[in-house]
Amino acid sequence: MALIVQKYGGTSVGTPERIANVAQRVAKFKMLGHQVVVVVSAMSGETNRLVALAKEVQPNPDSREMDVLLSTGEQVTIALLSMALMELGLKARSYTGSQVKIVTDNAHTKARILDIEEQNIRADLDAGYVVVVAGFQGVDEKGNITTLGRGGSDTTGVALAAALKADECQIYTDVDGVYTTDPRVVPEARRLKTITFEEMLEMASLGSKVLQIRSVEFAGKYKVKLRVLSSFDDEGEGTLITFEEEDNMEQAIISGIAFNRDEAKITVLGVPDRPGIAYQILGPVGEANIDVDMIIQNVGADGTTDFTFTVHRNEFKKALEVLKGVQSHIGAREISGDDRIAKVSVIGVGMRSHAGIASTMFRTLAEEGINIQMISTSEIKISVVIDEKYMELAVRVLHKAFGLEQGA
Amino acid sequence: MALIVQKYGGTSVGTPERIANVAQRVAKFKMLGHQVVVVVSAMSGETNRLVALAKEVQPNPDSREMDVLLSTGEQVTIALLSMALMELGLKARSYTGSQVKIVTDNAHTKARILDIEEQNIRADLDAGYVVVVAGFQGVDEKGNITTLGRGGSDTTGVALAAALKADECQIYTDVDGVYTTDPRVVPEARRLKTITFEEMLEMASLGSKVLQIRSVEFAGKYKVKLRVLSSFDDEGEGTLITFEEEDNMEQAIISGIAFNRDEAKITVLGVPDRPGIAYQILGPVGEANIDVDMIIQNVGADGTTDFTFTVHRNEFKKALEVLKGVQSHIGAREISGDDRIAKVSVIGVGMRSHAGIASTMFRTLAEEGINIQMISTSEIKISVVIDEKYMELAVRVLHKAFGLEQGA
Repeated sequence: MALIVQKYGGTSVGTPERIANVAQRVAKFKMLGHQVVVVVSAMSGETNRLVALAKEVQPNPDSREMDVLLSTGEQVTIALLSMALMELGLKARSYTGSQVKIVTDNAHTKARILDIEEQNIRADLDAGYVVVVAGFQGVDEKGNITTLGRGGSDTTGVALAAALKADECQIYTDVDGVYTTDPRVVPEARRLKTITFEEMLEMASLGSKVLQIRSVEFAGKYKVKLRVLSSFDDEGEGTLITFEEEDNMEQAIISGIAFNRDEAKITVLGVPDRPGIAYQILGPVGEANIDVDMIIQNVGADGTTDFTFTVHRNEFKKALEVLKGVQSHIGAREISGDDRIAKVSVIGVGMRSHAGIASTMFRTLAEEGINIQMISTSEIKISVVIDEKYMELAVRVLHKAFGLEQGA
Repeated sequence: MALIVQKYGGTSVGTPERIANVAQRVAKFKMLGHQVVVVVSAMSGETNRLVALAKEVQPNPDSREMDVLLSTGEQVTIALLSMALMELGLKARSYTGSQVKIVTDNAHTKARILDIEEQNIRADLDAGYVVVVAGFQGVDEKGNITTLGRGGSDTTGVALAAALKADECQIYTDVDGVYTTDPRVVPEARRLKTITFEEMLEMASLGSKVLQIRSVEFAGKYKVKLRVLSSFDDEGEGTLITFEEEDNMEQAIISGIAFNRDEAKITVLGVPDRPGIAYQILGPVGEANIDVDMIIQNVGADGTTDFTFTVHRNEFKKALEVLKGVQSHIGAREISGDDRIAKVSVIGVGMRSHAGIASTMFRTLAEEGINIQMISTSEIKISVVIDEKYMELAVRVLHKAFGLEQGA
């Protein structure tokens, strides 16, 4: 007998019929003798409906009241799913975030979980109940309703799994696992049976939409075994996200290729090469609340240097304006930018112990005539920035070069 | 400065625009220097939508989960109204039933209020906030969400007014007060400026739909001044429901004429006139969960008696069947029934000290050729059962006979 936490997103519980399907799946695990805690999101479309209502009465809605409003979405789902489980003859009981309680700080609309009082849930599980918990929501120490922000239901699932020391946390989505890359770009892309947390973190932060990065961080921190599965496929075993490399003796050197075209590049040319120059450039950008991703500085020969960084494409124009406002102050010769770029990354814990990954990557791109504009590396990742028109080509040739279509 | 509790029903908060109108009205009272607590229902249509969802997943929905589900309706409204109040520049804060807390017993879907912890609300009022409370809902001692059943939001308003010792509890509805009778039947019907609790109780129990009888009882018990007002009319002062007769020196003898055609009559003819016969007849009816309203027994001359009672028209056939099943056991000669009847009542605390009300009533009906089938009286009410086809006529002539169109 295992204790399993299952999380179902808005699409999986989007209609009464789909809720009944989720109940069937839960029943299957229960019949096998497992204890099951189910975390659910609001029915798809419900959150948007509520946000629209709020904006009609207050164009810039108060965050405390927004949380009171939005938390009703999951509350509807927990009641309906509990009813559906009872209709199958199971014992079921619903819990709002306040009822659990999932204690958070008071940062409305983006609260962080501080503590989970899991005693009542444990007692219900021991008494044979399926426990159904509202995702995305909690309660602060004064009893105010809070929400966890984007991807919050995943975080609720992982946090509950950690608090209950669950054997596995299963995240049901509309894809059946984590792939070596996006199958829409590379038809030969292959579902991974396992991936390490570090790799998953890089995949998530580089644009893979399967899991919110925050829930992956949380799972890594508390050593929760995470599994990504499709709620529309009864047979698949999904992708297990492991926290121990030893679990993966057969781990390939490279696990996957991530990519995104959400970024834009800004270059500051000919700035005096003196201490503090990076701060003089990025300080005003940070003050304008613009997040910076990659940063590269080349050592110059003539006492000046070129400084390049990337920002989200939506903030490209704003960042350019900010820098032009301080150009004379920092003594830059020229400020230029390009928002037609893409970032492509190869990811794998295996590269820690294998030389030659970078050279394979660069040679493969060179053979296709793809110019590399920027390079940045971490222990388990190499990212390059290229012209966005070559993005799909680069992903396809790299996927082949690293043998990802062949399986582990 | 007064402390006012205002309650708005589902129609009054049915759209974002109407919620904004309610906020305007609340702001008016706040600007006059009053402290205001607002109790709201779910937006009209929302409860039906949720019930339909529930029935899709569980045809006979679990009552605990039904309360979890339905309580989201008012939770949406409190958030939206608080936002609308802030949009007008007021300080506002919402409370669910659990947050208040409004402690109830654990009779899901029809819970009764046991206690209200009003300290936080009082502190918010003193700090200048408008407090917005979800009607219809509470929480039991174990933290389960409960609902109060039909008319529950009125009850929440009155209970909060009692707990806070409010100066007045204003119930906003889609009518502008309590009338001498239904204006659709008697165009000359007049809005009452005041009515006593006892009269209101009789009006409510006799089919006047303005207030739920439970909230009126509650208000009477805790001496809460209740006022019924229209939420679509800014000028009206509605009807004040008073708990002291002295408030009404100019009180008319008769306050109003109530009527309904929801009942049916069953007569058991020729039963032996012996002790226990009433129980032998009504016992089986009660066991079948059929409520009985009027009961009349005539003393017979030949050792037998006739026994007549009324039930809700929906339960007429069932009651007839029950009695035919025990007819031989009770030794009745015949059992007959009529579901084409109406009950018409004149109501007024003034009749306590005025003779002749009954004779005026009976003479007036006789002059129109209306036969009286049953009569029942209380201290402040006389009810007659007549053929339903004469109902409107009876109400019109009685309204005129007691001078109700002329004002107090």
